[in-house]
Order: sequence, then C-alpha cells, then structure tokens
Amino acid sequence: MSQTVEGAAQPAKRGRPGYDRSGLLDAAVAVFNESGYDATSVSALAARLGLSKAALYHHFSSKEEILETALSEALDGLEGVLVRTQSVVPSERLAAVLEGAVRVLAAHLPAVTLLLRVRGNSEIERRALERRRAFDQQVTGIVRAAQKEGTVRDDVDASVATRLLFGMVNSLVEWYRPGGAEDADALARDVLTVALDGLRTR
Amino acid sequence: MSQTVEGAAQPAKRGRPGYDRSGLLDAAVAVFNESGYDATSVSALAARLGLSKAALYHHFSSKEEILETALSEALDGLEGVLVRTQSVVPSERLAAVLEGAVRVLAAHLPAVTLLLRVRGNSEIERRALERRRAFDQQVTGIVRAAQKEGTVRDDVDASVATRLLFGMVNSLVEWYRPGGAEDADALARDVLTVALDGLRTR
Repeated sequence: MSQTVEGAAQPAKRGRPGYDRSGLLDAAVAVFNESGYDATSVSALAARLGLSKAALYHHFSSKEEILETALSEALDGLEGVLVRTQSVVPSERLAAVLEGAVRVLAAHLPAVTLLLRVRGNSEIERRALERRRAFDQQVTGIVRAAQKEGTVRDDVDASVATRLLFGMVNSLVEWYRPGGAEDADALARDVLTVALDGLRTR
Repeated sequence: MSQTVEGAAQPAKRGRPGYDRSGLLDAAVAVFNESGYDATSVSALAARLGLSKAALYHHFSSKEEILETALSEALDGLEGVLVRTQSVVPSERLAAVLEGAVRVLAAHLPAVTLLLRVRGNSEIERRALERRRAFDQQVTGIVRAAQKEGTVRDDVDASVATRLLFGMVNSLVEWYRPGGAEDADALARDVLTVALDGLRTR
C-alpha cells in the first residue's frame, strides 16, 4: 500500500491512499475475517490497511459502523432474494432462493463470511443475528409450503431441512474463491443438484 | 465449580476439584470454542475452570497438549470411520461414511467443533489440517469409486460433492446439541436423505 504522491501536495487527500468508502469496507472486512473482529483494534486495522486512523475515520465514524455496514450488505442481499422470489410458486421458490443465496454469497463473499462468524457480542451483532433468524424462518416457511404442495418430501422436518441446506450453502465461504475452478453458476447448479435431487442415481 | 473438601486435608489431591483428565479436556475445549483458542491464556483457562494453574498442569503439560489431544480425539474418530467401512462396497460406503461422521460429530461435539475452527496458526494446527485434508481426499476417492460404479451421479465433480456433503455435516456443530429435539439417529437419517435422495419428491 503506497501513499499517493499528490498526498503531500494536496492536503485534502492526505492519508487516503487509494481507498474509496466501498474499497475500504472490503479491505477492512477482509482483515476482520482473517484476524477476528473483536481482536482487531482501530489502530491495528489502520496499520494493516496502510492508513492513518484519521483517514479511516474520514470514511467511517467507528469500527462498529464498518461492521454494521458489512452485515447490512450481506443481509440486504439475502433478504432481497426473498423479495424477488415472492411471486414464484412454492414448487420452484425453494430452488430460486437457494440459487439466489449462492449468488449473494459469491458476490459479497467477505461480508457474508463476516455475517456467518457473528456471535452476538454487541447490539449490532445481535440485530444481525435477529435478521438472520428471520430469514431462516422465512425459508423454513417456503420449505413447509412446498411440503404441503407435495413437491418437497415431508419426512424431513422443514426447519431441519432448512438448516441442512444452508449448512451446505454457507460452507461455501470456506473454499469458494472468485476466479477459481468453479464459478458462481456452476456452484449454484451443484448445490441445487445435491439439495433437490441427491447424489444417488436412480 | 467448588473445591473438594478433602483438597485441604490430602495434599496429593490439592487443586484438582472434580476433574479427571477427560473431564478437564472437555471443559477446556468448551472454553476454547467459546472464547477462541489463541485468545485464551493458560491463566484465563484455569480461572474459567475454577482451577489453579498448577492443577491444570497436573493433567496437561501445556495449552498445546490440550489442543493436540482434542484434535486427535476428533480426527481419530473420523479416520476410524474410514477404517471400519473399508470392506463396504462403494455403493454403500458413502452412506456409511456420512452416517459415521455424523455420529462422531454428535459423540465428540466439542472436539469436532474445535477441529473445524482450526486455521493453521501453529505446527499442531497445521498437522491437524493435514489429517483433515487426507480424510477429505479419501472421501473424494469413495465418491469417485461410486461414480465409476454408476451408483452416484457424475455430473457433480467428486471433490465438490465431498465439500458440499461435509459442509452440510459440519454445519451441525452450529445447532446440534445432545439431548435436543433431534437425536444422532434422526440427524444421520436426515443428512443421508438430503445428501443421497434430495428433497424433491418424484
């Protein structure tokens, strides 16, 4: 991370080497994911990003604001999937929600990774967990509707099925990397294949 | 955590209130899972367990030995599943391995949880990750053999399939609690149903 040359000449830009708000958010979240949010002080974060604390505070008023912005990015994405699939019939909505969730995870990998590591250590984290729970409950409702319709088997409890499906989806943060061997399309197709049809041939 | 009364009278037992080695291991691993292994000092661990550091050192020579013992417990269990299913035909071995992995996870929940959070920050952790990778590769080999045999679909890459399956299995540590609504039998059955047959009715 190098200081911009004009930094010295143009005081207004001093201390903001190459980051806009969105780039800074991604870089900060990457540091949180690597070292832990609680374990990372603002000083340590600024040092890791090659910034002064003042430059960091130019974009975000606090570490908490960075956390809240990232968690909202992930949750807005997931909740958006539910909104966009609202008019899809139950038989197809579960597939559409799973596919949408994989795409949100692939497109917002650092933010979703952070969301999945949140443990409820602060008011911001507890609110995020509350939104995650509400999302899970809505998906469980979609599974239940498809079971009623007869398109999803009902010998697995709807909330257990939802947990297993999202266990599979969420585990992608452990190994999926953009630009790797599997792209988001292939990933979504594989998840849908295992989740809906299973691996056993017939 | 109360000190045993005989602790004062019988110097040989002083400072070991109610823990044998195995009980101490479980309690220590629970603290690591809650607060993070790296973030927990021996002093903090002893304090949380209501023990003196000397009492802790009576059972384990170091924090590292506790980590290594717990990781081995989890890995021995998982590798044991592969050994026990060695003579099972490929068409049934994948199911047997998944079922065995769910049972190991349910029976050794704290140790498996710790294993899944290991990031490779020390030689002990790197060796554990190496054993986990070897386990995953063996399972991938089992999936591949079943694909060759024609009993597992081959339109999902064997290593991706293995990651998705263990993503689902490993996510159980997030919500499975012994004595809860789902027991290990029901859990294993649900995982096999989703993994092998899928949720969609036919």
